[in-house]
Amino acid sequence: MTALDTLIQTLSRLPGIGPKSASRLAYHLIKTEKSYNQTLAQGIATIQDRIFPCSVCGSFTETDPCPVCSDPVRDRTLLCVVEEPQDVLTIQSSGAYDGLYHVLGGAISPLDGIGPEQLSFSKLLKRIDEGQFKELIIATNPTEEGDTTALYLRHILKDHPELSITRLASGLPIGGDLEYADRITLARSLRGRVNF
Amino acid sequence: MTALDTLIQTLSRLPGIGPKSASRLAYHLIKTEKSYNQTLAQGIATIQDRIFPCSVCGSFTETDPCPVCSDPVRDRTLLCVVEEPQDVLTIQSSGAYDGLYHVLGGAISPLDGIGPEQLSFSKLLKRIDEGQFKELIIATNPTEEGDTTALYLRHILKDHPELSITRLASGLPIGGDLEYADRITLARSLRGRVNF
Repeated sequence: MTALDTLIQTLSRLPGIGPKSASRLAYHLIKTEKSYNQTLAQGIATIQDRIFPCSVCGSFTETDPCPVCSDPVRDRTLLCVVEEPQDVLTIQSSGAYDGLYHVLGGAISPLDGIGPEQLSFSKLLKRIDEGQFKELIIATNPTEEGDTTALYLRHILKDHPELSITRLASGLPIGGDLEYADRITLARSLRGRVNF
Repeated sequence: MTALDTLIQTLSRLPGIGPKSASRLAYHLIKTEKSYNQTLAQGIATIQDRIFPCSVCGSFTETDPCPVCSDPVRDRTLLCVVEEPQDVLTIQSSGAYDGLYHVLGGAISPLDGIGPEQLSFSKLLKRIDEGQFKELIIATNPTEEGDTTALYLRHILKDHPELSITRLASGLPIGGDLEYADRITLARSLRGRVNF
């Protein structure tokens, strides 16, 4: 197997990269500036040494605790529970949230063999006991697994009356067209209609 | 900027990878087996040292001349002219061609400042003079640039009556549905209809 075939095969194991994209990427890498390839290779080779989960919230960081957990300006009464570390980045980039985060490490999915014990619920309960949280925002995905996880969270937090539990609103995406909304989203945005 | 931000930014400079895919890839690279990252990084860092254009046909190779050019079994009376090195791989993978190739290095595109002198036409004419070709198959893309390049090729080869010049057939993609064919493809497949 040539170096090119090997690179194409390696690239095609990345998520969302099929054989065609992989070969397009490989040909691009042959023709691009060499310094770019060195930077990219270096980044890929060292990323796992530089990035690790924050010991407090579980999001990926280069310093422990992560910049969000150690930021004195953030609202320490607000806790947003997400499935994956990248969800922290997504919510951060919305600019609409200034509280803390907790990363579960996935969603409950019995079919994939992921039960509550695989996720960081006990760490979450400990944080709630030791913290000063007033509101917990469930930001799991609007999927079956995310819904199950949200229900489970509400269940294990029923002994915390001091905590107001909320969940991200579901409905029509902003800028979208009613015509292109899928049936389930439309049904949910109807059931969850708000006064205007 | 963190190592993660740097990696995401570097990845998003790849063709077809937007900021969202780049961040998905970066998070995948954090979680995947370390040996995979090492293999990928190594492949990217060394690809330009291992792969270079074949001195005969111009397709990418690790040995010079490339395996196709030096294969004694291939039909040396057939020459297929393509735009890019990856087109050789694509046609090879169809398994329907056993002649030689010539890579032009692009297509004529005045708007992008690419004229005939930037492409390897003179090398092609030299190969034709020195070779024993009977048929030249133009396999440029069915685009405006590819069409222009094909016309230019036919023009500069008009003094080679020994050479039969053909071009890849255009029309409906196999397995496609008439309903989903675009207007231009449909028009071309009508104009180019064949006896049945």
